[in-house]
Amino acid sequence: MNRIPAKRRILLSVAYDGTAYHGFARLKEDPKTIEAELDAALTALLGVRTEVTGASRTDSGVHAMGNAAVFDTVSTIPTGNFPDALNTKLPYDIRVRAAREVSGDFHPRHTDTIKTYRYEIDNESIADPLRYRYAMQVGHELDIERMNKAASFLIGEHDFKSFCSVHTQAKTTRREITDIEVVRKTEQTVYITVRGHGFLYNMVRIIAGTLIEAGRGRIEPQEIMEILKAEDRTANPGFTAVAKGLTLLDIEFSELEEK
Amino acid sequence: MNRIPAKRRILLSVAYDGTAYHGFARLKEDPKTIEAELDAALTALLGVRTEVTGASRTDSGVHAMGNAAVFDTVSTIPTGNFPDALNTKLPYDIRVRAAREVSGDFHPRHTDTIKTYRYEIDNESIADPLRYRYAMQVGHELDIERMNKAASFLIGEHDFKSFCSVHTQAKTTRREITDIEVVRKTEQTVYITVRGHGFLYNMVRIIAGTLIEAGRGRIEPQEIMEILKAEDRTANPGFTAVAKGLTLLDIEFSELEEK
Repeated sequence: MNRIPAKRRILLSVAYDGTAYHGFARLKEDPKTIEAELDAALTALLGVRTEVTGASRTDSGVHAMGNAAVFDTVSTIPTGNFPDALNTKLPYDIRVRAAREVSGDFHPRHTDTIKTYRYEIDNESIADPLRYRYAMQVGHELDIERMNKAASFLIGEHDFKSFCSVHTQAKTTRREITDIEVVRKTEQTVYITVRGHGFLYNMVRIIAGTLIEAGRGRIEPQEIMEILKAEDRTANPGFTAVAKGLTLLDIEFSELEEK
Repeated sequence: MNRIPAKRRILLSVAYDGTAYHGFARLKEDPKTIEAELDAALTALLGVRTEVTGASRTDSGVHAMGNAAVFDTVSTIPTGNFPDALNTKLPYDIRVRAAREVSGDFHPRHTDTIKTYRYEIDNESIADPLRYRYAMQVGHELDIERMNKAASFLIGEHDFKSFCSVHTQAKTTRREITDIEVVRKTEQTVYITVRGHGFLYNMVRIIAGTLIEAGRGRIEPQEIMEILKAEDRTANPGFTAVAKGLTLLDIEFSELEEK
Protein backbone atom coordinates (compact mmCIF):
# COMPACT_ATOMS: atom_id res chain seq x y z
CA MET A 1 0.00 0.00 0.00
CA ASN A 2 2.92 2.29 0.73
CA ARG A 3 4.49 2.06 -2.72
CA ILE A 4 4.37 5.74 -3.71
CA PRO A 5 7.01 7.59 -1.71
CA ALA A 6 5.92 10.87 -0.15
CA LYS A 7 6.90 14.02 -2.00
CA ARG A 8 9.26 16.26 -0.10
CA ARG A 9 10.25 19.91 -0.70
CA ILE A 10 13.90 20.46 0.12
CA LEU A 11 15.60 23.82 0.65
CA LEU A 12 19.26 24.06 -0.33
CA SER A 13 21.75 26.67 0.81
CA VAL A 14 23.97 27.43 -2.17
CA ALA A 15 27.35 29.21 -2.50
CA TYR A 16 29.05 30.09 -5.77
CA ASP A 17 31.74 32.06 -7.50
CA GLY A 18 29.64 33.83 -10.14
CA THR A 19 32.57 34.78 -12.40
CA ALA A 20 31.93 32.09 -15.00
CA TYR A 21 28.12 32.26 -14.95
CA HIS A 22 25.44 34.33 -16.66
CA GLY A 23 23.64 34.87 -13.38
CA PHE A 24 21.45 32.61 -11.26
CA ALA A 25 18.26 32.37 -13.30
CA ARG A 26 18.09 29.71 -16.01
CA LEU A 27 18.13 31.08 -19.55
CA LYS A 28 16.88 29.42 -22.69
CA GLU A 29 19.73 27.78 -24.58
CA ASP A 30 22.39 28.99 -22.11
CA PRO A 31 23.66 26.28 -19.78
CA LYS A 32 26.04 28.61 -17.92
CA THR A 33 23.68 29.67 -15.14
CA ILE A 34 23.69 28.58 -11.51
CA GLU A 35 20.12 27.31 -11.79
CA ALA A 36 20.90 25.19 -14.86
CA GLU A 37 23.89 23.64 -13.05
CA LEU A 38 21.74 22.82 -10.00
CA ASP A 39 19.04 21.34 -12.26
CA ALA A 40 21.61 19.20 -14.07
CA ALA A 41 23.18 17.94 -10.82
CA LEU A 42 19.77 17.07 -9.32
CA THR A 43 18.58 15.42 -12.53
CA ALA A 44 21.75 13.31 -12.69
CA LEU A 45 21.46 12.36 -9.01
CA LEU A 46 17.72 11.56 -9.01
CA GLY A 47 17.43 10.10 -12.50
CA VAL A 48 14.39 12.24 -13.25
CA ARG A 49 14.22 15.76 -14.65
CA THR A 50 14.23 18.09 -11.62
CA GLU A 51 14.24 21.88 -11.50
CA VAL A 52 15.01 24.20 -8.62
CA THR A 53 13.29 27.46 -7.73
CA GLY A 54 15.78 30.04 -6.50
CA ALA A 55 15.38 32.61 -3.75
CA SER A 56 17.48 35.34 -5.34
CA ARG A 57 18.12 35.67 -9.06
CA THR A 58 21.56 37.19 -8.73
CA ASP A 59 23.00 38.97 -11.77
CA SER A 60 25.73 37.76 -14.08
CA GLY A 61 29.04 37.82 -12.19
CA VAL A 62 27.53 38.25 -8.71
CA HIS A 63 28.69 35.74 -6.05
CA ALA A 64 26.87 34.08 -3.18
CA MET A 65 27.72 32.49 0.12
CA GLY A 66 24.10 31.87 1.08
CA ASN A 67 21.64 31.92 -1.78
CA ALA A 68 18.81 29.37 -1.50
CA ALA A 69 16.78 27.14 -3.80
CA VAL A 70 14.03 24.56 -3.37
CA PHE A 71 13.09 21.44 -5.31
CA ASP A 72 10.53 18.66 -4.92
CA THR A 73 11.43 15.00 -4.89
CA VAL A 74 9.90 11.61 -4.19
CA SER A 75 13.35 10.04 -3.73
CA THR A 76 14.25 8.33 -0.47
CA ILE A 77 17.68 9.98 -0.19
CA PRO A 78 17.96 11.34 3.36
CA THR A 79 17.75 15.15 3.32
CA GLY A 80 21.12 15.54 5.04
CA ASN A 81 22.87 13.58 2.30
CA PHE A 82 21.97 16.01 -0.50
CA PRO A 83 24.88 18.45 -0.04
CA ASP A 84 27.64 15.84 -0.45
CA ALA A 85 25.73 13.93 -3.14
CA LEU A 86 25.11 17.08 -5.21
CA ASN A 87 28.62 18.47 -4.70
CA THR A 88 30.12 15.42 -6.42
CA LYS A 89 28.06 16.36 -9.51
CA LEU A 90 28.48 20.16 -9.40
CA PRO A 91 31.41 22.17 -10.77
CA TYR A 92 33.91 23.27 -8.07
CA ASP A 93 32.69 26.88 -8.18
CA ILE A 94 29.18 25.94 -6.99
CA ARG A 95 28.70 24.25 -3.59
CA VAL A 96 25.56 23.14 -1.79
CA ARG A 97 26.31 23.95 1.85
CA ALA A 98 23.18 22.63 3.59
CA ALA A 99 19.79 21.01 2.94
CA ARG A 100 16.61 20.85 5.01
CA GLU A 101 13.04 19.78 4.39
CA VAL A 102 10.41 22.54 4.31
CA SER A 103 6.64 22.50 3.99
CA GLY A 104 5.25 21.72 0.54
CA ASP A 105 3.85 25.21 0.04
CA PHE A 106 7.03 27.08 0.91
CA HIS A 107 8.17 29.33 -1.98
CA PRO A 108 11.51 31.07 -1.50
CA ARG A 109 10.47 34.21 -3.39
CA HIS A 110 6.92 34.51 -2.03
CA THR A 111 7.87 34.85 1.60
CA ASP A 112 9.32 37.70 3.63
CA THR A 113 13.11 37.57 3.83
CA ILE A 114 16.01 39.56 5.14
CA LYS A 115 18.90 39.46 2.69
CA THR A 116 22.45 40.46 3.54
CA TYR A 117 24.77 41.59 0.76
CA ARG A 118 28.41 42.58 0.93
CA TYR A 119 30.13 44.83 -1.57
CA GLU A 120 33.93 44.53 -1.48
CA ILE A 121 36.26 47.36 -2.52
CA ASP A 122 39.97 46.83 -3.22
CA ASN A 123 41.07 50.32 -2.17
CA GLU A 124 44.56 50.62 -3.60
CA SER A 125 46.06 52.30 -6.63
CA ILE A 126 47.19 49.01 -8.23
CA ALA A 127 44.62 46.19 -8.12
CA ASP A 128 45.37 43.08 -6.07
CA PRO A 129 45.27 40.19 -8.58
CA LEU A 130 44.21 37.78 -5.81
CA ARG A 131 41.03 39.80 -5.25
CA TYR A 132 40.33 40.72 -8.87
CA ARG A 133 37.40 38.31 -9.13
CA TYR A 134 35.70 39.39 -5.90
CA ALA A 135 36.29 43.11 -5.43
CA MET A 136 35.99 46.40 -7.31
CA GLN A 137 39.23 48.33 -7.36
CA VAL A 138 38.92 51.99 -6.30
CA GLY A 139 42.24 53.84 -6.35
CA HIS A 140 40.93 57.04 -4.75
CA GLU A 141 41.03 57.69 -1.01
CA LEU A 142 37.72 56.82 0.61
CA ASP A 143 36.40 58.61 3.70
CA ILE A 144 34.61 55.83 5.58
CA GLU A 145 32.90 58.25 7.96
CA ARG A 146 31.36 60.15 5.04
CA MET A 147 30.23 56.86 3.49
CA ASN A 148 28.49 55.81 6.71
CA LYS A 149 26.89 59.25 7.05
CA ALA A 150 25.55 59.00 3.48
CA ALA A 151 24.38 55.43 4.14
CA SER A 152 22.44 56.52 7.24
CA PHE A 153 19.95 58.42 5.03
CA LEU A 154 19.14 55.21 3.14
CA ILE A 155 18.24 53.14 6.19
CA GLY A 156 14.51 52.64 6.73
CA GLU A 157 11.60 52.44 4.32
CA HIS A 158 11.87 54.66 1.25
CA ASP A 159 10.98 54.83 -2.40
CA PHE A 160 14.26 53.63 -3.95
CA LYS A 161 13.40 54.56 -7.54
CA SER A 162 16.61 56.66 -7.69
CA PHE A 163 18.55 53.56 -6.65
CA CYS A 164 17.31 51.03 -9.14
CA SER A 165 17.86 50.26 -12.78
CA VAL A 166 15.54 52.12 -15.14
CA HIS A 167 14.74 48.64 -16.49
CA THR A 168 13.03 47.56 -13.27
CA GLN A 169 9.67 45.84 -13.67
CA ALA A 170 8.81 45.98 -9.99
CA LYS A 171 5.24 47.05 -9.17
CA THR A 172 6.44 49.27 -6.37
CA THR A 173 9.87 50.76 -5.77
CA ARG A 174 9.33 51.14 -2.00
CA ARG A 175 11.70 48.95 -0.01
CA GLU A 176 13.02 48.76 3.55
CA ILE A 177 16.73 48.71 4.30
CA THR A 178 17.30 47.58 7.87
CA ASP A 179 21.04 48.27 8.03
CA ILE A 180 24.05 49.53 6.06
CA GLU A 181 27.54 49.41 7.48
CA VAL A 182 30.76 50.59 5.83
CA VAL A 183 33.97 49.34 7.43
CA ARG A 184 37.64 49.44 6.50
CA LYS A 185 38.38 45.75 6.97
CA THR A 186 42.11 46.08 6.24
CA GLU A 187 44.23 48.99 5.02
CA GLN A 188 43.33 48.02 1.44
CA THR A 189 39.83 46.57 1.87
CA VAL A 190 36.49 48.31 2.41
CA TYR A 191 33.29 46.30 2.98
CA ILE A 192 29.83 47.77 2.43
CA THR A 193 27.27 45.48 4.09
CA VAL A 194 23.59 46.06 3.26
CA ARG A 195 20.65 44.28 4.88
CA GLY A 196 17.03 44.61 3.87
CA HIS A 197 13.67 43.08 2.96
CA GLY A 198 14.16 42.51 -0.75
CA PHE A 199 15.96 44.71 -3.21
CA LEU A 200 15.21 46.24 -6.60
CA TYR A 201 17.15 45.42 -9.76
CA ASN A 202 20.78 46.63 -9.37
CA MET A 203 19.84 48.37 -6.10
CA VAL A 204 22.79 47.19 -3.97
CA ARG A 205 25.27 47.92 -6.76
CA ILE A 206 23.85 51.45 -7.19
CA ILE A 207 23.98 51.99 -3.42
CA ALA A 208 27.63 50.86 -3.48
CA GLY A 209 28.45 53.17 -6.41
CA THR A 210 26.70 56.09 -4.69
CA LEU A 211 28.50 55.51 -1.38
CA ILE A 212 31.85 55.30 -3.23
CA GLU A 213 31.13 58.73 -4.75
CA ALA A 214 30.30 60.02 -1.26
CA GLY A 215 33.55 58.52 0.05
CA ARG A 216 35.52 60.27 -2.71
CA GLY A 217 33.86 63.59 -1.85
CA ARG A 218 31.87 63.90 -5.06
CA ILE A 219 28.49 63.58 -3.32
CA GLU A 220 27.72 65.27 0.02
CA PRO A 221 26.13 62.83 2.50
CA GLN A 222 23.06 65.05 2.93
CA GLU A 223 22.47 65.03 -0.85
CA ILE A 224 21.23 61.46 -0.43
CA MET A 225 17.93 62.84 0.90
CA GLU A 226 17.36 64.87 -2.27
CA ILE A 227 18.40 61.97 -4.47
CA LEU A 228 15.84 59.73 -2.75
CA LYS A 229 13.17 62.43 -3.03
CA ALA A 230 13.76 62.81 -6.79
CA GLU A 231 12.54 59.22 -7.35
CA ASP A 232 14.52 59.22 -10.59
CA ARG A 233 17.63 57.15 -11.38
CA THR A 234 19.03 59.93 -13.58
CA ALA A 235 18.95 62.31 -10.59
CA ASN A 236 21.47 60.04 -8.84
CA PRO A 237 25.09 60.70 -9.87
CA GLY A 238 26.14 57.41 -8.26
CA PHE A 239 27.25 54.76 -10.74
CA THR A 240 26.25 51.09 -10.77
CA ALA A 241 29.24 49.37 -9.17
CA VAL A 242 30.53 46.32 -11.10
CA ALA A 243 28.85 42.98 -10.42
CA LYS A 244 32.00 41.10 -9.36
CA GLY A 245 32.32 43.06 -6.08
CA LEU A 246 28.90 41.88 -4.87
CA THR A 247 28.28 38.77 -2.76
CA LEU A 248 24.90 37.63 -1.41
CA LEU A 249 25.97 36.56 2.07
CA ASP A 250 22.75 35.29 3.60
CA ILE A 251 18.97 35.02 3.29
CA GLU A 252 16.85 34.72 6.43
CA PHE A 253 13.33 33.41 5.79
CA SER A 254 10.98 34.82 8.40
CA GLU A 255 8.29 32.16 8.10
CA LEU A 256 10.31 29.04 7.56
CA GLU A 257 8.72 26.05 9.25
CA GLU A 258 11.08 23.15 9.70
CA LYS A 259 9.47 19.87 8.76
CA MET B 1 78.19 63.46 -26.78
CA ASN B 2 75.45 62.16 -24.53
CA ARG B 3 73.61 60.22 -27.22
CA ILE B 4 73.77 56.72 -25.71
CA PRO B 5 71.36 56.59 -22.77
CA ALA B 6 72.71 54.99 -19.61
CA LYS B 7 71.71 51.40 -18.94
CA ARG B 8 69.62 50.93 -15.82
CA ARG B 9 68.72 47.78 -13.88
CA ILE B 10 65.17 47.98 -12.56
CA LEU B 11 63.65 45.80 -9.84
CA LEU B 12 59.93 45.12 -10.12
CA SER B 13 57.65 43.91 -7.33
CA VAL B 14 55.17 41.50 -8.93
CA ALA B 15 51.85 40.03 -7.72
CA TYR B 16 49.90 37.32 -9.50
CA ASP B 17 47.11 34.79 -9.31
CA GLY B 18 49.01 31.68 -10.40
CA THR B 19 45.92 29.60 -11.24
CA ALA B 20 46.22 29.99 -15.01
CA TYR B 21 50.03 29.75 -15.22
CA HIS B 22 52.60 27.00 -15.43
CA GLY B 23 54.73 28.62 -12.77
CA PHE B 24 57.02 31.63 -12.79
CA ALA B 25 60.01 30.41 -14.80
CA ARG B 26 59.84 30.71 -18.58
CA LEU B 27 59.51 27.40 -20.41
CA LYS B 28 60.41 26.63 -24.00
CA GLU B 29 57.32 26.81 -26.22
CA ASP B 30 54.97 27.52 -23.31
CA PRO B 31 53.82 31.13 -23.14
CA LYS B 32 51.71 30.61 -19.98
CA THR B 33 54.35 31.49 -17.41
CA ILE B 34 54.64 34.65 -15.35
CA GLU B 35 58.12 35.33 -16.71
CA ALA B 36 56.98 35.01 -20.34
CA GLU B 37 54.13 37.46 -19.65
CA LEU B 38 56.51 39.97 -18.06
CA ASP B 39 58.95 39.58 -20.97
CA ALA B 40 56.14 40.15 -23.48
CA ALA B 41 54.85 43.24 -21.66
CA LEU B 42 58.34 44.77 -21.39
CA THR B 43 59.17 43.95 -25.00
CA ALA B 44 55.92 45.57 -26.16
CA LEU B 45 56.52 48.64 -24.00
CA LEU B 46 60.19 49.14 -24.85
CA GLY B 47 60.12 48.04 -28.49
CA VAL B 48 63.16 45.83 -27.98
CA ARG B 49 63.33 42.21 -26.81
CA THR B 50 63.67 42.35 -23.02
CA GLU B 51 63.81 39.49 -20.50
CA VAL B 52 63.39 39.58 -16.74
CA THR B 53 65.30 37.58 -14.13
CA GLY B 54 63.01 36.46 -11.33
CA ALA B 55 63.77 36.23 -7.62
CA SER B 56 61.62 33.18 -6.90
CA ARG B 57 60.64 30.55 -9.47
CA THR B 58 57.31 29.72 -7.92
CA ASP B 59 55.64 26.46 -8.98
CA SER B 60 52.67 26.01 -11.26
CA GLY B 61 49.56 27.28 -9.47
CA VAL B 62 51.39 29.12 -6.68
CA HIS B 63 50.42 32.78 -6.14
CA ALA B 64 52.43 35.85 -5.18
CA MET B 65 51.83 39.20 -3.59
CA GLY B 66 55.52 40.17 -3.59
CA ASN B 67 57.69 38.22 -5.98
CA ALA B 68 60.45 40.27 -7.66
CA ALA B 69 62.16 40.44 -11.02
CA VAL B 70 64.86 42.62 -12.59
CA PHE B 71 65.51 43.76 -16.15
CA ASP B 72 67.98 46.07 -17.87
CA THR B 73 66.96 48.93 -20.10
CA VAL B 74 68.43 51.94 -21.88
CA SER B 75 65.00 53.55 -22.22
CA THR B 76 64.31 56.97 -20.72
CA ILE B 77 61.00 55.99 -19.12
CA PRO B 78 61.09 57.22 -15.51
CA THR B 79 61.44 54.25 -13.14
CA GLY B 80 58.27 55.15 -11.25
CA ASN B 81 56.21 54.97 -14.44
CA PHE B 82 56.94 51.29 -15.13
CA PRO B 83 54.16 49.79 -12.94
CA ASP B 84 51.29 51.62 -14.67
CA ALA B 85 52.87 51.30 -18.12
CA LEU B 86 53.41 47.55 -17.75
CA ASN B 87 50.02 46.92 -16.14
CA THR B 88 48.25 48.21 -19.25
CA LYS B 89 50.05 45.45 -21.21
CA LEU B 90 49.77 42.61 -18.67
CA PRO B 91 46.79 40.28 -18.14
CA TYR B 92 44.60 41.24 -15.17
CA ASP B 93 45.93 38.36 -13.06
CA ILE B 94 49.49 39.73 -13.06
CA ARG B 95 50.23 43.18 -11.59
CA VAL B 96 53.48 45.09 -11.21
CA ARG B 97 53.10 46.81 -7.85
CA ALA B 98 56.33 48.83 -7.64
CA ALA B 99 59.58 49.56 -9.48
CA ARG B 100 62.94 50.89 -8.32
CA GLU B 101 66.38 51.23 -9.79
CA VAL B 102 69.09 48.95 -8.35
CA SER B 103 72.81 48.66 -8.99
CA GLY B 104 73.88 47.02 -12.25
CA ASP B 105 75.34 43.96 -10.52
CA PHE B 106 72.31 43.16 -8.37
CA HIS B 107 70.99 39.64 -9.03
CA PRO B 108 67.75 38.72 -7.25
CA ARG B 109 68.74 35.06 -6.78
CA HIS B 110 72.42 35.59 -5.89
CA THR B 111 71.80 37.67 -2.80
CA ASP B 112 70.64 36.83 0.69
CA THR B 113 66.90 37.19 1.12
CA ILE B 114 64.18 36.59 3.66
CA LYS B 115 61.08 35.20 1.99
CA THR B 116 57.67 35.09 3.61
CA TYR B 117 55.14 32.52 2.42
CA ARG B 118 51.57 31.99 3.53
CA TYR B 119 49.71 28.71 3.22
CA GLU B 120 45.92 29.13 3.45
CA ILE B 121 43.60 26.37 4.69
CA ASP B 122 39.83 26.45 4.16
CA ASN B 123 38.96 24.48 7.31
CA GLU B 124 35.34 23.44 6.72
CA SER B 125 33.65 20.28 5.62
CA ILE B 126 32.25 21.82 2.42
CA ALA B 127 34.72 23.96 0.46
CA ASP B 128 34.07 27.69 0.11
CA PRO B 129 33.82 28.30 -3.67
CA LEU B 130 35.04 31.89 -3.19
CA ARG B 131 38.34 30.59 -1.79
CA TYR B 132 38.72 27.55 -4.01
CA ARG B 133 41.54 29.12 -6.03
CA TYR B 134 43.57 30.31 -3.04
CA ALA B 135 43.15 27.77 -0.24
CA MET B 136 43.38 24.04 0.38
CA GLN B 137 40.22 22.62 1.89
CA VAL B 138 40.75 20.49 5.01
CA GLY B 139 37.51 19.14 6.46
CA HIS B 140 39.08 17.67 9.62
CA GLU B 141 39.33 19.56 12.87
CA LEU B 142 42.76 21.15 13.25
CA ASP B 143 44.41 21.71 16.63
CA ILE B 144 46.28 24.98 16.14
CA GLU B 145 48.30 24.58 19.34
CA ARG B 146 49.62 21.22 18.18
CA MET B 147 50.48 22.71 14.79
CA ASN B 148 52.47 25.52 16.42
CA LYS B 149 54.22 23.04 18.71
CA ALA B 150 55.21 20.91 15.70
CA ALA B 151 56.31 24.05 13.83
CA SER B 152 58.58 25.11 16.70
CA PHE B 153 60.91 22.16 16.00
CA LEU B 154 61.41 23.40 12.42
CA ILE B 155 62.53 26.91 13.35
CA GLY B 156 66.27 27.51 13.11
CA GLU B 157 68.95 26.05 10.86
CA HIS B 158 68.46 22.38 9.96
CA ASP B 159 69.00 19.90 7.18
CA PHE B 160 65.56 19.92 5.55
CA LYS B 161 66.10 16.89 3.31
CA SER B 162 62.99 15.27 4.84
CA PHE B 163 61.03 18.39 3.84
CA CYS B 164 61.97 18.72 0.20
CA SER B 165 61.04 17.00 -3.03
CA VAL B 166 63.20 13.99 -3.87
CA HIS B 167 63.74 15.78 -7.18
CA THR B 168 65.71 18.61 -5.58
CA GLN B 169 68.95 19.57 -7.31
CA ALA B 170 70.17 21.79 -4.48
CA LYS B 171 73.84 21.38 -3.49
CA THR B 172 72.97 21.49 0.18
CA THR B 173 69.67 20.84 1.91
CA ARG B 174 70.57 22.94 4.97
CA ARG B 175 68.32 25.97 5.32
CA GLU B 176 67.33 28.43 8.04
CA ILE B 177 63.71 29.06 8.94
CA THR B 178 63.42 32.22 10.99
CA ASP B 179 59.76 31.91 11.91
CA ILE B 180 56.62 29.79 11.48
CA GLU B 181 53.27 30.91 12.82
CA VAL B 182 49.96 29.04 12.61
CA VAL B 183 46.87 31.14 13.33
CA ARG B 184 43.15 30.59 13.04
CA LYS B 185 42.32 33.74 11.10
CA THR B 186 38.55 33.15 11.10
CA GLU B 187 36.44 30.21 12.22
CA GLN B 188 36.96 28.63 8.77
CA THR B 189 40.43 29.90 7.86
CA VAL B 190 43.86 28.82 9.08
CA TYR B 191 47.03 30.60 7.93
CA ILE B 192 50.47 29.01 8.12
CA THR B 193 53.09 31.74 7.69
CA VAL B 194 56.69 30.66 7.08
CA ARG B 195 59.72 32.97 6.91
CA GLY B 196 63.23 31.93 6.01
CA HIS B 197 66.43 32.42 4.03
CA GLY B 198 65.58 30.52 0.88
CA PHE B 199 63.65 27.30 0.58
CA LEU B 200 64.13 23.95 -1.12
CA TYR B 201 61.88 22.62 -3.87
CA ASN B 202 58.34 22.06 -2.45
CA MET B 203 59.63 22.76 1.07
CA VAL B 204 56.88 25.14 2.21
CA ARG B 205 54.16 22.87 0.78
CA ILE B 206 55.66 19.83 2.57
CA ILE B 207 55.90 21.85 5.82
CA ALA B 208 52.22 22.78 5.38
CA GLY B 209 51.20 19.16 4.70
CA THR B 210 53.21 17.95 7.72
CA LEU B 211 51.70 20.58 10.04
CA ILE B 212 48.19 19.68 8.80
CA GLU B 213 48.89 16.05 9.78
CA ALA B 214 50.09 17.25 13.18
CA GLY B 215 46.91 19.35 13.52
CA ARG B 216 44.76 16.29 12.72
CA GLY B 217 46.59 14.25 15.34
CA ARG B 218 48.29 11.90 12.90
CA ILE B 219 51.80 13.15 13.71
CA GLU B 220 52.95 13.95 17.27
CA PRO B 221 54.66 17.37 17.46
CA GLN B 222 57.85 15.81 18.92
CA GLU B 223 58.08 13.42 15.95
CA ILE B 224 59.23 16.39 13.87
CA MET B 225 62.68 16.07 15.48
CA GLU B 226 63.03 12.46 14.29
CA ILE B 227 61.68 13.33 10.85
CA LEU B 228 64.33 16.05 10.52
CA LYS B 229 67.04 13.72 11.78
CA ALA B 230 66.12 11.04 9.20
CA GLU B 231 67.17 13.39 6.35
CA ASP B 232 64.89 11.40 4.06
CA ARG B 233 61.65 12.58 2.42
CA THR B 234 60.14 9.08 2.65
CA ALA B 235 60.59 9.15 6.45
CA ASN B 236 58.17 12.10 6.57
CA PRO B 237 54.47 11.06 6.54
CA GLY B 238 53.49 14.67 5.77
CA PHE B 239 52.05 15.15 2.29
CA THR B 240 52.91 17.90 -0.18
CA ALA B 241 50.03 20.36 0.22
CA VAL B 242 48.47 21.50 -3.07
CA ALA B 243 50.08 24.45 -4.84
CA LYS B 244 46.98 26.67 -4.94
CA GLY B 245 47.06 27.27 -1.15
CA LEU B 246 50.51 28.84 -1.30
CA THR B 247 51.22 32.55 -1.74
CA LEU B 248 54.67 34.17 -1.74
CA LEU B 249 53.89 37.26 0.33
CA ASP B 250 57.19 39.11 0.39
CA ILE B 251 60.90 39.00 -0.37
CA GLU B 252 63.30 41.17 1.62
CA PHE B 253 66.70 41.66 -0.01
CA SER B 254 69.34 42.14 2.65
CA GLU B 255 71.89 43.93 0.49
CA LEU B 256 69.74 46.03 -1.73
CA GLU B 257 71.35 49.34 -2.50
CA GLU B 258 68.94 51.92 -3.80
CA LYS B 259 70.35 53.82 -6.73
